Amino acid sequence: MNLLTIDTSGQVAGCAVMVDGRVTYQVVMNRGLTHSETIMPAVDQALTASGLTCGDIDVFAAVAGPGSFTGVRIGVCAVKGLAHAVGKPCARVHALEALSMNFYGFDGLCCPILDARRGQVYCAAYDMKNGLPVEAVAPGAVPLADFIGALPADRRLAFVGDGVPAYGDKISKMLGSRALIAPENLRDLRPDAACVLAAARPDRWMEARYLTPIYLRAPQAERERAAGRDHTKPLRRQREEAAK
Amino acid sequence: MNLLTIDTSGQVAGCAVMVDGRVTYQVVMNRGLTHSETIMPAVDQALTASGLTCGDIDVFAAVAGPGSFTGVRIGVCAVKGLAHAVGKPCARVHALEALSMNFYGFDGLCCPILDARRGQVYCAAYDMKNGLPVEAVAPGAVPLADFIGALPADRRLAFVGDGVPAYGDKISKMLGSRALIAPENLRDLRPDAACVLAAARPDRWMEARYLTPIYLRAPQAERERAAGRDHTKPLRRQREEAAK
Repeated sequence: MNLLTIDTSGQVAGCAVMVDGRVTYQVVMNRGLTHSETIMPAVDQALTASGLTCGDIDVFAAVAGPGSFTGVRIGVCAVKGLAHAVGKPCARVHALEALSMNFYGFDGLCCPILDARRGQVYCAAYDMKNGLPVEAVAPGAVPLADFIGALPADRRLAFVGDGVPAYGDKISKMLGSRALIAPENLRDLRPDAACVLAAARPDRWMEARYLTPIYLRAPQAERERAAGRDHTKPLRRQREEAAK
Repeated sequence: MNLLTIDTSGQVAGCAVMVDGRVTYQVVMNRGLTHSETIMPAVDQALTASGLTCGDIDVFAAVAGPGSFTGVRIGVCAVKGLAHAVGKPCARVHALEALSMNFYGFDGLCCPILDARRGQVYCAAYDMKNGLPVEAVAPGAVPLADFIGALPADRRLAFVGDGVPAYGDKISKMLGSRALIAPENLRDLRPDAACVLAAARPDRWMEARYLTPIYLRAPQAERERAAGRDHTKPLRRQREEAAK
């Protein structure tokens, strides 16, 4: 079985090809938020390097979020388009679950945290069972302190994800030696981990048209509209100033 | 500080660029043993993607073995050449140490095993201390059973490396639940782990001319010569047969 994974959900973008359970090519890029420009050439290269074309792929996996709103949409739309074009299923991979795969074998809870801005983190906690993450604390978008408060007091905790550079020191101060902070080589989401997850869960495959992003809170525009504010104001102001 | 790592020591080849402690680009290729063709284009792409040229790199790291004899020489020579050209130091990264970095946070010994053919594995065991591997069983080239026999009986053991597909089942049978077998996404050497190791140990940097491969046993030609056999025989026979 040939599987292609695309991840543009966070700061780091990447893709990987897996052929019969072996990852044949993986690239991870952390060069600023230009995922829309970089991801399709990377996919092309991953396929070429694996001796495959799009038509040879049996399942297209997208890391569907949570993460950057625009980033999530780039990856999900790319995967929907490719899968629809060749009539193959999609796999919807949860970013926090894929991140927890970096700490296979850790005797404790793996706690992915992503910087969700506005003083919040996207977060969850997982036990690893038979090599796959099992939810211990449900995914949410909350202030870091609330998440820490929800974690069991008697377990070791490994923190991964792009929230680590911003919050690592704070976490170490709050939890002491009970907290393990991921080093650079295990901090970010790896598309090969998403491949392994997607391949292990065929029950989560779906037709391209059903693939949707995973959002843990409403986007800013919707929040502003719900609050009765005119969310187009900043955009209009920009245009007016540019026209001056 | 800008660091470039090249790894062609095993079945999987890769390179990575690290800028001030952050990995900006990483590629891992598992497309058969054509490292000599694939690695330099990959290096070029890694530099371009990171907005750097060869002259911007401060340290050139090579995964220097143990591993495939030819593979090790490809990576070491590429790194020596690049570093010599721009007058910058090299870092010599041990493949088994870099592999052990996949199991940061594991409460036990990390045991990298590489298929060394002739019924042997290249192997070692490491404790992770402050995020870096500390030798618990010295690297060697021995039959798997000898290595297993040398491991402490009271520790959990995580096995990684390209020996895992060949020996994983045997290990599980010998050690039961005490042995953890790396999943696909953590099985192979990652150049970003080699970047982290190389950056953490400036005491192991050296001038390009001092960079040498790490061999755990003599190559076949030398073993045959030492045994008094004519190691050129197979090559001559091939030529004779081709000439017929």
